[in-house]
Amino acid sequence: MRIGLLGFGVVGRGVYDLTAPREDMSVVKVVCLEDVTLPDAEVTKNFQDLLNDDSIDTVVEAMGGLHPAFEFVKASIEAGKNIVTSNKALVATFYDELIPLAKEKGVCFRCTAAVGGGIGWLSELERARRMQTIQKVGGIMNGTCNYILDSMTRLGLTYADALSQAQALGYAEANPTTDVEGIDTWHKVILSSNVAFGISLVPETVPVAGISRIKATDVENFTSHGYVCKLISTGKCADGNVSAYVQPTLVPTTEPESVVPANYNLITLVGSASGRMSFYGQGAGRYPTAYNVVQDCADVLTGKGFYSPYGGKVSAKNTDMLRYYVSGAADAWLDEITEERWGDAVITKPVSVEAMHTWLKDQPAAFIAAFAE
Amino acid sequence: MRIGLLGFGVVGRGVYDLTAPREDMSVVKVVCLEDVTLPDAEVTKNFQDLLNDDSIDTVVEAMGGLHPAFEFVKASIEAGKNIVTSNKALVATFYDELIPLAKEKGVCFRCTAAVGGGIGWLSELERARRMQTIQKVGGIMNGTCNYILDSMTRLGLTYADALSQAQALGYAEANPTTDVEGIDTWHKVILSSNVAFGISLVPETVPVAGISRIKATDVENFTSHGYVCKLISTGKCADGNVSAYVQPTLVPTTEPESVVPANYNLITLVGSASGRMSFYGQGAGRYPTAYNVVQDCADVLTGKGFYSPYGGKVSAKNTDMLRYYVSGAADAWLDEITEERWGDAVITKPVSVEAMHTWLKDQPAAFIAAFAE
Repeated sequence: MRIGLLGFGVVGRGVYDLTAPREDMSVVKVVCLEDVTLPDAEVTKNFQDLLNDDSIDTVVEAMGGLHPAFEFVKASIEAGKNIVTSNKALVATFYDELIPLAKEKGVCFRCTAAVGGGIGWLSELERARRMQTIQKVGGIMNGTCNYILDSMTRLGLTYADALSQAQALGYAEANPTTDVEGIDTWHKVILSSNVAFGISLVPETVPVAGISRIKATDVENFTSHGYVCKLISTGKCADGNVSAYVQPTLVPTTEPESVVPANYNLITLVGSASGRMSFYGQGAGRYPTAYNVVQDCADVLTGKGFYSPYGGKVSAKNTDMLRYYVSGAADAWLDEITEERWGDAVITKPVSVEAMHTWLKDQPAAFIAAFAE
Repeated sequence: MRIGLLGFGVVGRGVYDLTAPREDMSVVKVVCLEDVTLPDAEVTKNFQDLLNDDSIDTVVEAMGGLHPAFEFVKASIEAGKNIVTSNKALVATFYDELIPLAKEKGVCFRCTAAVGGGIGWLSELERARRMQTIQKVGGIMNGTCNYILDSMTRLGLTYADALSQAQALGYAEANPTTDVEGIDTWHKVILSSNVAFGISLVPETVPVAGISRIKATDVENFTSHGYVCKLISTGKCADGNVSAYVQPTLVPTTEPESVVPANYNLITLVGSASGRMSFYGQGAGRYPTAYNVVQDCADVLTGKGFYSPYGGKVSAKNTDMLRYYVSGAADAWLDEITEERWGDAVITKPVSVEAMHTWLKDQPAAFIAAFAE
């Protein structure tokens, strides 16, 4: 396999390092804007140099972002090149264009590192769905949020201090919005649901609530009541009805999710034959992520295409009835659904996920956390 | 694929059920001693009927036990049939005969359900080792022990009551020795180490301590000091030195192992690129186990042989220095290595795993638990 590599940042460099000693694949050309010199690969700033190189059979996209990643990947597919990417935003956003196009052009398309970093989660789903119906996917999919919530819970830090510490350690970006508002997790659960259920979720129908409004007093409340707060994604399919959402969730301390430390992920599937299976590992980082990119390249060598058939567009219907913890808000609807109070916070009666997230849109300061089912 | 099925107990029946709706494989002949009538498969008490049926390309062994399972599997390999089995005792015990023979005869040999039941653990190892060096394997591999220890910890049951409950629920056999003395886990860590490190461990060099001597007072001791006791297996390989052992282990409540409930398993690998990856699921049960047997059949269809090359015989050298909790014993050596006391129990200074297990052999009532590294 002759690889053209787009991007030479954290992941791209890792892919270069991990493929260097291998005989079955090599990075022969790298497109990046920095001045880099490599012993074994040509470096160019011009994507066309890669696209027009017929000796390159596989493009590894490690640039991140939507543009020009989308245009480069699309052009590469149209040129008959296989695609391996770790870019969850790209695949979740352009699922309906890229997945059918790859199939039409007969090229492999793999993106295992896009969800779970070092965990081979999408490969697990691909394997699991050969044998059974997948009923549920989800879990802790974002290491930044887990690091912040874990630091607040175990060390008693404020949100601001936990975020600063995550940034200092390189676990959070300077602008952490994508992670802390749950957008990264949202991309991942959409992509996971698409693969698990053989559908194409309409992203706008998947509500997301992040962790940026959580306060130290919320965490104290959770701890004193025996719960741990985690940002949890959920995708479910039953009788043709799909529900999918991302929200802070209160997990009892007896559940595996409750002890996931630092920037680790814990992702779960429930299958009709296997029951619950969970996968724990580093959700990010150069080598864990690059590891699964190179695993994808090895799978491309064995002819593996995408993980599941491309299905039609499906809107999520979030009728699940859950109890919620709500702080930082007060209005008539909240009064109406209040079941009890934890200090200044409200514990609601069961309300639909959809109703809660619709209400949340007009609440500039409210923090919500669902009680785990 | 035309399957000959040996045994029609819990797993065999599950395999029959899961393959029934599939078009790529079917069970055509079943060898079992009970009187069973099946709509789609011939049932016989005579193994030769299966062996001599040239239309059968794959034998699924679901009998359990060493004999005649070994003779039947060996004869099947010699007749050119692929093997799928969930029998860890068989594979761990006859590794040196069966794995090279399968390779010599050019047949596939898969035993994914032998470790971790519904977790595709050996397949995970196979995938992980394509890309990196595996440094460590192990974890909670026996659901019976986990159920007993979990019930003692969470419900405050005595060992005898927890065992009775496990037996009543079908999680423990009438004769629980293989599970509670750690033999089942021992087979599993030997097999896992063989696959992970490409070796053939000499079983006698892998020490095992079980849980049958644990008392409610031990569990109270652990809980009051912030630990949870689990039966943990360990296999490590560094600089060509392999260590491997099975022993009760004290896990801090911040570690994922500490919250594994009921009869679940949590199995971990540490790889040079991926870092720590853990797999959580049901370690036994009809459909979880049968699920991975059928997964193996699907992998045989794609031509997958064994998980790793057969390596030479290797003796474990258990020089790891660990601190231990010891109860139910008193002698001069124990006095010498005592660091502190928890009530009547002793906490030792770091001693080698080998020294502790050698000492334990002559202690009829001692219970030991290592502090996790």
